[in-house]
Amino acid sequence: MPEPESTPTTPVVWAVVVAAGSGRRFGGAKQYAPLAGRRVLDWSVDAARSVADGVVVVVAPGDAETAEAAGDAVVPGGATRSESVRAGLSAVPADADVVVIHDGARPLASHALFRSVVDAVLAGADAAVPVVEVIDTVTDPHGVPVDRDSLRAVQTPQGFRASVLRRVHAGTPEATDDSSLVVAGGGRLRPVQGERWNLKITEPDDLVVAEALMEQR
Amino acid sequence: MPEPESTPTTPVVWAVVVAAGSGRRFGGAKQYAPLAGRRVLDWSVDAARSVADGVVVVVAPGDAETAEAAGDAVVPGGATRSESVRAGLSAVPADADVVVIHDGARPLASHALFRSVVDAVLAGADAAVPVVEVIDTVTDPHGVPVDRDSLRAVQTPQGFRASVLRRVHAGTPEATDDSSLVVAGGGRLRPVQGERWNLKITEPDDLVVAEALMEQR
Repeated sequence: MPEPESTPTTPVVWAVVVAAGSGRRFGGAKQYAPLAGRRVLDWSVDAARSVADGVVVVVAPGDAETAEAAGDAVVPGGATRSESVRAGLSAVPADADVVVIHDGARPLASHALFRSVVDAVLAGADAAVPVVEVIDTVTDPHGVPVDRDSLRAVQTPQGFRASVLRRVHAGTPEATDDSSLVVAGGGRLRPVQGERWNLKITEPDDLVVAEALMEQR
Repeated sequence: MPEPESTPTTPVVWAVVVAAGSGRRFGGAKQYAPLAGRRVLDWSVDAARSVADGVVVVVAPGDAETAEAAGDAVVPGGATRSESVRAGLSAVPADADVVVIHDGARPLASHALFRSVVDAVLAGADAAVPVVEVIDTVTDPHGVPVDRDSLRAVQTPQGFRASVLRRVHAGTPEATDDSSLVVAGGGRLRPVQGERWNLKITEPDDLVVAEALMEQR
């Protein structure tokens, strides 16, 4: 007699949106700047929510009230980006299968991009990251060019097998990018096509650009 | 009796605007795309003209008529970027002291940026290039991060002592960037602060961004 077919369980996906920066370069907390009638952070959270069962927003200590409406949970960040990611991860339920890390200052990442990093993890990757080619010539500080074809610019959202992300963060490492921790730990990294205009809001002019691109859509 | 003071001569500055690309990625010749009521190329040439006694425009063979109004001289380009630069350089008068090379697809470079590369050459540099920091995380093709602080993104306009630029091109080298030829030849490179929104038009969405930034100015 054949075995009863196992019921396929729907994978549980959570997102951690990191918005704990002080916006030193921007001249204020850029994640709360107005953009197309809402705040930068709201757009970033909404895109994350389109693939996630829940969203944890990590904010600077003291900003919890400001960010309240944005996520299912709002937690204070740490002194570094990696500490902030760990603070967010600790609020992700234990049954999550996939965790997506996203930068709160990237309001233009599309639903399709979120979908593709989640799908890549469900298909077997330990980490899936959007990459784009580098368009400008890049040099070292002495003006000697670096072969562009050997470089990739890495964006967020980045998708992770939850168990792998928790494991690489257990050692409290520091990195500007979580996927590099997975690579360093020997995990399977799957690049997916990023989006040229998945802009990281950095300077006030960037809001002009983001607004124009949103109107275009 | 004191020597008569020598009359300081005004340095002669010429610009070469390279617009010979086929726009394969753009889906058409992006340098002729409309932007804020004119063509991308016209903005690029005008900014160059603000510091130059004359402007040579290098176009794809067959485009000479299209580009006619843009420059003081219009010359057909070669099969590679460096060949196109040499074609432009050959139309620069022999008495030029400074040559500025600019990409025809960068319509947002400011007059101030052109001024600063010319001034840096007049102050003694062999080459002066606008550089900006790299904002995204950059990795190698295996996902291993490259230290961002060791990388600079290089833009145009690039200013050159005319004699140095002619000398480094005499050997018909190939490079995506002229300043790297000067560095390879042992010349003095002076970086100047570039402009984050000195965008190289690459995809149709870039025109939306350029138009928004122009309206903002």
